[in-house]
Amino acid sequence: MRTFRLVIACPDRVGIVAKVSNFLASYNGWITEASHHSDNLSGWFFMRHEIRADSLPFDLEGFRQAFAPIAEEFSMDWRITDSAQKKRVVLMASRESHCLADLLHRWHSDELYCEIACVISNHQDLRSMVEWHNIPYYHVPVDPKDKEPAFAEVSRLVKQHEADVVVLARYMQILPPQLCREYAHQVINIHHSFLPSFVGAKPYHQASLRGVKLIGATCHYVTEELDAGPIIEQDVVRVSHRDSIENMVRFGRDVEKMVLARGLRAHLEDRVLVHDNKTVVFD
Amino acid sequence: MRTFRLVIACPDRVGIVAKVSNFLASYNGWITEASHHSDNLSGWFFMRHEIRADSLPFDLEGFRQAFAPIAEEFSMDWRITDSAQKKRVVLMASRESHCLADLLHRWHSDELYCEIACVISNHQDLRSMVEWHNIPYYHVPVDPKDKEPAFAEVSRLVKQHEADVVVLARYMQILPPQLCREYAHQVINIHHSFLPSFVGAKPYHQASLRGVKLIGATCHYVTEELDAGPIIEQDVVRVSHRDSIENMVRFGRDVEKMVLARGLRAHLEDRVLVHDNKTVVFD
Amino acid sequence: MRTFRLVIACPDRVGIVAKVSNFLASYNGWITEASHHSDNLSGWFFMRHEIRADSLPFDLEGFRQAFAPIAEEFSMDWRITDSAQKKRVVLMASRESHCLADLLHRWHSDELYCEIACVISNHQDLRSMVEWHNIPYYHVPVDPKDKEPAFAEVSRLVKQHEADVVVLARYMQILPPQLCREYAHQVINIHHSFLPSFVGAKPYHQASLRGVKLIGATCHYVTEELDAGPIIEQDVVRVSHRDSIENMVRFGRDVEKMVLARGLRAHLEDRVLVHDNKTVVFD
Amino acid sequence: MRTFRLVIACPDRVGIVAKVSNFLASYNGWITEASHHSDNLSGWFFMRHEIRADSLPFDLEGFRQAFAPIAEEFSMDWRITDSAQKKRVVLMASRESHCLADLLHRWHSDELYCEIACVISNHQDLRSMVEWHNIPYYHVPVDPKDKEPAFAEVSRLVKQHEADVVVLARYMQILPPQLCREYAHQVINIHHSFLPSFVGAKPYHQASLRGVKLIGATCHYVTEELDAGPIIEQDVVRVSHRDSIENMVRFGRDVEKMVLARGLRAHLEDRVLVHDNKTVVFD
Repeated sequence: MRTFRLVIACPDRVGIVAKVSNFLASYNGWITEASHHSDNLSGWFFMRHEIRADSLPFDLEGFRQAFAPIAEEFSMDWRITDSAQKKRVVLMASRESHCLADLLHRWHSDELYCEIACVISNHQDLRSMVEWHNIPYYHVPVDPKDKEPAFAEVSRLVKQHEADVVVLARYMQILPPQLCREYAHQVINIHHSFLPSFVGAKPYHQASLRGVKLIGATCHYVTEELDAGPIIEQDVVRVSHRDSIENMVRFGRDVEKMVLARGLRAHLEDRVLVHDNKTVVFD
Repeated sequence: MRTFRLVIACPDRVGIVAKVSNFLASYNGWITEASHHSDNLSGWFFMRHEIRADSLPFDLEGFRQAFAPIAEEFSMDWRITDSAQKKRVVLMASRESHCLADLLHRWHSDELYCEIACVISNHQDLRSMVEWHNIPYYHVPVDPKDKEPAFAEVSRLVKQHEADVVVLARYMQILPPQLCREYAHQVINIHHSFLPSFVGAKPYHQASLRGVKLIGATCHYVTEELDAGPIIEQDVVRVSHRDSIENMVRFGRDVEKMVLARGLRAHLEDRVLVHDNKTVVFD
Repeated sequence: MRTFRLVIACPDRVGIVAKVSNFLASYNGWITEASHHSDNLSGWFFMRHEIRADSLPFDLEGFRQAFAPIAEEFSMDWRITDSAQKKRVVLMASRESHCLADLLHRWHSDELYCEIACVISNHQDLRSMVEWHNIPYYHVPVDPKDKEPAFAEVSRLVKQHEADVVVLARYMQILPPQLCREYAHQVINIHHSFLPSFVGAKPYHQASLRGVKLIGATCHYVTEELDAGPIIEQDVVRVSHRDSIENMVRFGRDVEKMVLARGLRAHLEDRVLVHDNKTVVFD
Repeated sequence: MRTFRLVIACPDRVGIVAKVSNFLASYNGWITEASHHSDNLSGWFFMRHEIRADSLPFDLEGFRQAFAPIAEEFSMDWRITDSAQKKRVVLMASRESHCLADLLHRWHSDELYCEIACVISNHQDLRSMVEWHNIPYYHVPVDPKDKEPAFAEVSRLVKQHEADVVVLARYMQILPPQLCREYAHQVINIHHSFLPSFVGAKPYHQASLRGVKLIGATCHYVTEELDAGPIIEQDVVRVSHRDSIENMVRFGRDVEKMVLARGLRAHLEDRVLVHDNKTVVFD
């Protein structure tokens, strides 16, 4: 069922819900899902509606025009999207295949509703798997002594493919600040630890050394500060003294791919709102 | 912060949210929490608001009168409650103390906001623990050959103490159908299995025989059909071949008390709506 | 590191561990992993050792001859396997791809150490995915009015490919009793519910109707009685009133594939011992 | 059933298990539980046996003498304990009651097998609860300007009560280094975060600021470095944007008390072995 998704963040005050739901009701809009959140700390209000597209007399542009006065009155950050319009995703990977293979399968089996525009990798290893899915594969090697040309090429490809969102599916390179800024809240990373524990490299080794009893993974938006962006989703799995680092890496792969898939899905369905460095995820 | 809680269930149609939020906004009501759910299968709509009491010009009775026309228009099952008004709870237990002790401590440490009117037990074992909390303890032994007098006395005590909710905190007797009907959706039980597995007696023994790898507990409203009422909350814990039945019972106690406490809390905060034999729990 | 795996089940009595570890020590065997379990209820003892192959002066056959007297003395059910010897797996699937794709990827990325001899399906849908992995794909349609010829062909293929284990990766047909008996404890199924809840067809629909708050999946050995064989692994995921049956099915897929992969891995590593209708899984 | 618990850590080499199990078998020792672990990184071997006391011809002292030559031969760190001998526990708390009440109830209901020698607190709040259990309560206020006299008194009380283990059940003071050293691996703390995240004060506030999706608790041995000692047990619970810091604190209390109880139980049953800064926990 095709829906319009109305996503709003604004300073909290009396009457927002009344105004918005009046607006929708006055056009006979059939709400299939509604979520609200008042954040006491920041004084902000967050809201997401799904409305049956066929119940409204507008297209997206018509909705935008009709709703604009309300948005202005309440100083809203807002967007309206069409569930039928597939977001364009650029996937980036290195050598490890588990996250990429998982996302490709979810897309291939119609679980993830999106367009996968292309895959960019600094290695050739995953080309055949990607091409079996009829998705273009770009090999952009990164020269450790001069990374700039590679990232210029990455940037060009992302633009050329009109990406709505870039997913770092275990892409083992750090994106340059410029790219992070340009695609703020549009680049999703999976970090292989339960952040903020074990920032940086080799988190499973760090976890093994510290002797933790659970390991985890974190899906977050990429910001200029490494592994410090807004967290979308996290999960953990139990480990014990019996588990070698190899076992932890293996368990971790399963958590990583699940957490990344859940995070990406929430993003694609416009369920994630970012305020300050935190997310509201309407599930 | 004192709030009014407006809880609504009604057939789904366009305009409910608009009508309700308009009503609230027209009186300048400050909504601190709002939850909605449209159930596709049944075609019903469920809604819960918390509104700051000091933002509204009514007391409960005034609210009821003002809102009645809307409720009628939309054929609502509804209630409005005052968060400051403590619900009266009657606890029932047998010999095992873990659920009772847990609830008493949560109440004693101000985590559970309610009045514990009294404890009724078919044994004397837990009297001292209860009386230390300054709560009346009634010993109502159940004669296995004639249970009727005991349940007449239980019924009398529940009435006398004006119970809003009765909690079977591992009370090992089956309530008579009459009592179940009279207090529909007001009697909460904790069953020591992950229902619908292992209905009836000795679920941990059944679980051990079946060789399951997880055991659980289920908090549900009591209905005439044993262990078949609407489920409020469930959880599980991992077990293995290493775990004897005694271990399962021990692990189970922890799950039971957590699940019961979460279920009771949701009930006390008017977060549980029952429709058909299922619950909507707005957390 | 190549190891021999010594797996033993026998009636419990004093001196088993001493005898076995003496035997191993007398040949200078380097134990890398040792697990024991005494089951009080059945009075049986279970034991699994991994021993570095290069520390022993035998091949498997030599080990068998040397160990036979001890095995006889203690009436052991036992086996010795070589970790370097890949087990031969036959996968069976219908139309749904999630479990099959997951297992194929784990095999392809060297996480699952085995030979995938072939895939048998009653549909053509997954042929291309399987053939990309260079694995033979057999389409054996099942005529609902006469299933016998299909299962004769399945049986022939399983034999021809010398399967050590058959995995029903969401194969939506019930195997005939004869096949179940012939491959006792060698056919692994994934059932899409937390057994023993919701035996049989459409478990997610059953779960939705019952209003459970967790759904799960169960990996078990297939026996003649439907969904009643020894359980190897189970897991659950939280659901709520917000989740439609479609959502439950989607969440369920993730649990199913994880639980099946863990169960199969345990089987491949000779970690699962069956006694009566229960398993000991040495993790 | 009364058992002797033989707990061993030593450099790994061939023949340890054979030697130990031979020793036990030669005296007809009936092993009810046996656990082994070879740690590849450190090259150490860990082992724990429970042996029916009535199957052995020794008391503890006799066992010690008989086993001493083997222990010496393999350079073992080892101990033998009697399950019937209750360990003496000193509990320390401040104002928050949840961990203390939980441990007291487990002890009172015979779930925790130990002697609770006394409770020491820097506040008077929990006196009545403790004294209802007939346990001595010592109020030792800590002067923030001069903590030395308080900790001298704590030290004196711990000695006087011949504590085998000290449990910091949300005792909100940092123990002086001297005490940490003197009772190495005998002081158990519960930290209200998933370490190593959020070391130090107000971890739930830190967690809320960082926007994590899971919060946790960590049970660990106290060392001189704050919140950095060997981890015994950890667990987490899911939170979301809906959860205020108050809610996190409330959820956290449940995780804290469960994790502390599991950690303490493992310690009391001699299941925890410490090597370097990590634990082996034989469950």
